[in-house]
Amino acid sequence: MDSGGFFKSNVMNVAKSIKKTGKDDPRRVIHSLKVGLALTLVSLFYYSRPLYDGFGVAGMWAVLTVVVVFEFTVGGTLSKGLNRGCATLLAGALGVGAQHLAIAFGKKGEPIVLGALLFILAAGATFLRFFPRIKARYDYGVVIFILTFSLVTVSGFRVNEILELAEQRLLTILIGGATCMVVSILVCPVWAGQELHNLVASNIQKLANYLEGFQAEYFQDKQKSKSSLQGYKSVLGSKASEESLGNLARWEPGHGAFRLRHPWKQYLKLGALARECAYKIETLNTYLNPEIQECMELRCKFEEPCKIMSSESSKALKAISSSMKTMTAPSAAKCHIENSKTATKLLKVALETISLEDAQLIAIIPVVTIASILEEITKTVEKVYDSASELSNLAHFKNVESNVSPEKQPPPHLLHRGTINPLVVDIANNNNNNNNNNNNNDQIEITIHDIISSESPEKVENAPPKSCAENAQSNSCAVVNIIVCH
Amino acid sequence: MDSGGFFKSNVMNVAKSIKKTGKDDPRRVIHSLKVGLALTLVSLFYYSRPLYDGFGVAGMWAVLTVVVVFEFTVGGTLSKGLNRGCATLLAGALGVGAQHLAIAFGKKGEPIVLGALLFILAAGATFLRFFPRIKARYDYGVVIFILTFSLVTVSGFRVNEILELAEQRLLTILIGGATCMVVSILVCPVWAGQELHNLVASNIQKLANYLEGFQAEYFQDKQKSKSSLQGYKSVLGSKASEESLGNLARWEPGHGAFRLRHPWKQYLKLGALARECAYKIETLNTYLNPEIQECMELRCKFEEPCKIMSSESSKALKAISSSMKTMTAPSAAKCHIENSKTATKLLKVALETISLEDAQLIAIIPVVTIASILEEITKTVEKVYDSASELSNLAHFKNVESNVSPEKQPPPHLLHRGTINPLVVDIANNNNNNNNNNNNNDQIEITIHDIISSESPEKVENAPPKSCAENAQSNSCAVVNIIVCH
Repeated sequence: MDSGGFFKSNVMNVAKSIKKTGKDDPRRVIHSLKVGLALTLVSLFYYSRPLYDGFGVAGMWAVLTVVVVFEFTVGGTLSKGLNRGCATLLAGALGVGAQHLAIAFGKKGEPIVLGALLFILAAGATFLRFFPRIKARYDYGVVIFILTFSLVTVSGFRVNEILELAEQRLLTILIGGATCMVVSILVCPVWAGQELHNLVASNIQKLANYLEGFQAEYFQDKQKSKSSLQGYKSVLGSKASEESLGNLARWEPGHGAFRLRHPWKQYLKLGALARECAYKIETLNTYLNPEIQECMELRCKFEEPCKIMSSESSKALKAISSSMKTMTAPSAAKCHIENSKTATKLLKVALETISLEDAQLIAIIPVVTIASILEEITKTVEKVYDSASELSNLAHFKNVESNVSPEKQPPPHLLHRGTINPLVVDIANNNNNNNNNNNNNDQIEITIHDIISSESPEKVENAPPKSCAENAQSNSCAVVNIIVCH
Repeated sequence: MDSGGFFKSNVMNVAKSIKKTGKDDPRRVIHSLKVGLALTLVSLFYYSRPLYDGFGVAGMWAVLTVVVVFEFTVGGTLSKGLNRGCATLLAGALGVGAQHLAIAFGKKGEPIVLGALLFILAAGATFLRFFPRIKARYDYGVVIFILTFSLVTVSGFRVNEILELAEQRLLTILIGGATCMVVSILVCPVWAGQELHNLVASNIQKLANYLEGFQAEYFQDKQKSKSSLQGYKSVLGSKASEESLGNLARWEPGHGAFRLRHPWKQYLKLGALARECAYKIETLNTYLNPEIQECMELRCKFEEPCKIMSSESSKALKAISSSMKTMTAPSAAKCHIENSKTATKLLKVALETISLEDAQLIAIIPVVTIASILEEITKTVEKVYDSASELSNLAHFKNVESNVSPEKQPPPHLLHRGTINPLVVDIANNNNNNNNNNNNNDQIEITIHDIISSESPEKVENAPPKSCAENAQSNSCAVVNIIVCH
């Protein structure tokens, strides 16, 4: 390729990556324009003569404030702006105090006292930045505190008009900060709280997608798209962004459906549980390797309960995620949680029917491990549900039950009915002894009911678990009945 | 409690937490003092009259630079200082160019052209910050670019002595930046590269501690300290700090044992594998629950291989971690890796001896799952070893083999010898058919040799896998022989 062509292809690549970055999140483009707007607005203070006479060189602090304070989210801008304002005020006052103190020590003592004070305050404030709580919320304020204190003490030594200077600087910082906040809130605002809400909901959705994909790929040998099986990976490392959004969200006023004291902490708990689930999925993913998918014959015995566990857990997570998106109580997930719990009992029943005459134990290790990890995932999904319910209570999410009229419910539809016999009665004796191994010739009849929505698919599309959601209160949907016949 | 007592206990708490923060990492105290020192040094430019006359108000830029640029690590300070310097230079030049261009449009057009240019450049530069690569390395530079460009264009509109101003500002920034760098490098430096090296090594050590603790707690019912079983949790979320240290380390010159172009990227790969291992350990940890530790009788059959897998994996990780600390090749880990791999074969043999007449399959699910996850962990540990070996090659770590004279080797010592029969021959036929289930009455004799170091324990203490390390090249240590007798 000649150098011209090389150059051209390079330019094309850069152009493509710019287009992609903008397309991935158009708010990035808007944010860039907002920064340009705020900066141009503030530079008016310099351009227009009357204002210039009032503020002088201090006007450049307004420009500086805009550049440094303007952040992507409203919470970020407010946090930095308020930190900057308060720290400047505090450090300015302390600086003036330090000046007065130093003057008392005479012409020779003044620089020594000021230098010592500066050293002590700078070192002390820097040490404060190592405390995690201060680091998370007031880090920028501490930096500005050191900055302003050193500028006031140092410049005051020469200028002798500190008070006037301080007033000018505070006023310009106020103008710069206010411009940022106004532009940030009024022009297409990006709320950190809303971002956190969406991030946690989409993370839970990603876990649901994986479990759905796993079920299809492993148990039905359907090739799923790579993206649904890889999406959960981003959940593994979401801790840092969730925590930073959580810290920023606290600075924001009420917005949209979120009140001022929205329980942001609960999102961090919910996010941590979603990550716990993702860690287990990461381990599960090791077994989704075609080369260790052996022994089709035995897998069948595990398939039914494992399929139910993964699909019902997936549906539960989807219901939680979509109820978060609509800010309603996650009651629709309840029956899926119950189903997946029943499936773990079903698994125990299936396990007891396996005789190892057919095959060696070694051949079923992968599928046994998968079943066991799925059971653990089921437990974690229940924890996610409990945490989401707590969030729904704390944040006063709408309760959907009142919206559903009983007449609307379609008649129950029998999806699946299975009978396994003979086998051990374990479930009925659950309360007496969990590990009893009697080999009686008892029978267990397993019946699985599921409701298929009679609505058209288009209507159901936007709320995947709608058929279930509508009937969550009646407890009649997707019930797995395990009837013990003696 | 009266208000005086309440106040006193509060003060005591704060004092305690200050003491703890300082004690956890004494370098924090040193860093705080360094910032104080650099700031006091720079403020001398203001205090001393001759310098003041030269720099004027611009001297405050030196103070500002110190406060904003001084970071905990040398890499952080260099990165910010260089970013600040280059961005100021570039933006200053562009600003002067913009001024010249604007003047050509006459008195009325000037502010409009400058405003438009400011808007375009600020918006464009802000958009650049969304690119991950730029965000990671040049984020601060872009901010300073916008800042300087707006200050130059805006102030130039009034002052008309931009070039002189720019020269002053660059010089003061240079002085501030140079002071930071000198203090940062000369006074107890904290190198980001060294930090990254230590972080990855200690993460691997934490995984080793867990596996050791798990082995003791689960298989020997010994109560281990909570800390050894909880330490791995911090590895799960180490991605962000590893990546930021990796980015900073690139800015650093050669230091200590690290050359200028040390393969920092390889540390990130190694760290990612350690996390992969930690995710599996997190899943394994679910099963370290006393209530699911059932069926002692069957557990015994799994115990031996599982014990070897976890203890040898733990030893391998320890050997890798301590070889990193001494910057030597991790050859000592090789034999532990081989042992843990042999243990997985041993596990397969053990699995084949289990008859389910003794107990239901359901009762052994937890221990089967543990064995299966341990096998996956073993595989990941091998990947960690491969990655550590690659790092050792890339970074030219010392090879330890030349240090060991053959005479020093103690004679082999038989630690363990076990015979299991009758059972299925699977290992010998590995190449022919992996899943064959013939029930011949063949015999397998399993012999496990291990070398016990004849040195005194005090000598071994500082290098846990030393007995093995010394003999790594002879391939005679801790060999598990599996002899198939037809």
